[in-house]
Amino acid sequence: MHTLLILSRHAPAYRRLIEPADLPDLRLLQSTDLSSLDGSTSESDIVLGEPSLVAPALARLPHVRWVQSTWAGVEPLLAPSVRRDYVLTNARGVFGALMVEYVFGYLIAHERRMFDKYEAQKAGRWDPTPPGTLRTRQIGLLGVGSIGAELARTAKHFGLRVKGYTRVSEDCPDVDAYFHGEDRPAFAADLDYLVSAMPNTTRTRRLVDATLLAALPPRAVFVNPGRGSVVDEAALAAALASGRLAGAVLDVFEEEPLPPDHIFWRTPNIVITSHTAALSVPDDIAPVFIGNYRRFVAGDPLQYQVDFEAEY
Amino acid sequence: MHTLLILSRHAPAYRRLIEPADLPDLRLLQSTDLSSLDGSTSESDIVLGEPSLVAPALARLPHVRWVQSTWAGVEPLLAPSVRRDYVLTNARGVFGALMVEYVFGYLIAHERRMFDKYEAQKAGRWDPTPPGTLRTRQIGLLGVGSIGAELARTAKHFGLRVKGYTRVSEDCPDVDAYFHGEDRPAFAADLDYLVSAMPNTTRTRRLVDATLLAALPPRAVFVNPGRGSVVDEAALAAALASGRLAGAVLDVFEEEPLPPDHIFWRTPNIVITSHTAALSVPDDIAPVFIGNYRRFVAGDPLQYQVDFEAEY
Repeated sequence: MHTLLILSRHAPAYRRLIEPADLPDLRLLQSTDLSSLDGSTSESDIVLGEPSLVAPALARLPHVRWVQSTWAGVEPLLAPSVRRDYVLTNARGVFGALMVEYVFGYLIAHERRMFDKYEAQKAGRWDPTPPGTLRTRQIGLLGVGSIGAELARTAKHFGLRVKGYTRVSEDCPDVDAYFHGEDRPAFAADLDYLVSAMPNTTRTRRLVDATLLAALPPRAVFVNPGRGSVVDEAALAAALASGRLAGAVLDVFEEEPLPPDHIFWRTPNIVITSHTAALSVPDDIAPVFIGNYRRFVAGDPLQYQVDFEAEY
Repeated sequence: MHTLLILSRHAPAYRRLIEPADLPDLRLLQSTDLSSLDGSTSESDIVLGEPSLVAPALARLPHVRWVQSTWAGVEPLLAPSVRRDYVLTNARGVFGALMVEYVFGYLIAHERRMFDKYEAQKAGRWDPTPPGTLRTRQIGLLGVGSIGAELARTAKHFGLRVKGYTRVSEDCPDVDAYFHGEDRPAFAADLDYLVSAMPNTTRTRRLVDATLLAALPPRAVFVNPGRGSVVDEAALAAALASGRLAGAVLDVFEEEPLPPDHIFWRTPNIVITSHTAALSVPDDIAPVFIGNYRRFVAGDPLQYQVDFEAEY
């Protein structure tokens, strides 16, 4: 018999989605916060939940062998003080569609000057300014994992050329040219759009710095639906304020919610979307857990395992 | 020897694009307006240009055998007073990419509440309202010609279900279900998005009327990048004002520019984009002319011939 502790703000929804799957040998416990952890929950050998809730609970869950994160980002579970003697799997393969809509929605908004047209309409003004088009533009993807691959596929659909910057991998058929390591200036040199889909790791920290930004053409727009830690925020604000960069579309930040006095609120040509690019919803994550549970009881390797050393 | 009269606001650009093709037996004349038509231009047997300029010039061009329109819409040339004793070809196959970006850009803007988020940002407000997604939505295409087919293909890319309303054709593989004639209520019944890509003909006039709008669910958004004449504008304004329709994205209108006192400027949940969805640019149209000229001198049938009776 296995005992699953659902430790999530959406615990009731997860229970409703998991129970009908009739998983073998599984007892379900649920909790929406840490206060209800007690003797019964301490028996749990599996946890499904938000890393921010799971990390502080792990010390009270001695039998845990597997944690399924409901998020893609698992930073709280990578803290040095938190144990690592279990299998950690995260949510992957479910955010691609939302990320694609986010990125290409805002790319088209930029090409078509959607917000200028919105202001013109509010002023009762007919605005025949012609639109640009994505066709033949160049997009650079920082990171080509499962989300980057979806972005690349949609970029080809819209007729863009795709450059990819990765650690080592070169396995996405929709990437036209790959760059690694010290190639950042060549990667950035002729981009219309730079999109970061990188996880938050020691290696990716502030990868989008003054040097990379200076290598972009002034027409370029930076889009970050990934992790705020990837960006040197002061350098980005300076590039935008001086016009060395045409725009930025930012979903994520070093500190969230973005503090009221943060310079980004006053930086020109910036779009702030308040960490809504791709939300984790139980409808998407429950099937990931269910599939992994069947592997767990069969003794098969779980999908989307996090490598604690690689940090993703 | 053939004589081509380029009668276009972009005549110099067309000349620059056509001359390097070194077309056989072709003399080029160009004019950006009607005032410079004289004895020399009256020899022309081919005209390339905007229908609004070509229609009033035809009476002074007795030898014309072929007109290549730079626009998709050829209404001025369909007026009863204008001769029809020549082959008319229009611009097709070049607007699909721009139309696709327009339609899906605004569909994503609607799902993600882009303009609400824009206002929140202007107010310095962190706005975590979650986005919707196009995945599993239903889109209905009024008209599935070359542009409709491109829209259908992109709809499938984003995971939408596609319904098509056509006169008779059922030949687009990306349309999941076809409707014709009196099937308009069944076509409209469960749509999230209704998009018109119909030409302006007697048959399509006010096809989007109070009856069709009433058949749409209240969550539906109507998008019109096609022709303004397809819409009963008063009925549309009433449906939006009463909340029986969630929104409209309109590029085209009965009268353009939209008059300052038009009710649409004060109608809620409407986006007005000032006839910029897909502009005719010489870079796209010149290759259509060049291909057709080669067919013309070879005696082959021209591409994109307009049927004067069908009006498109």
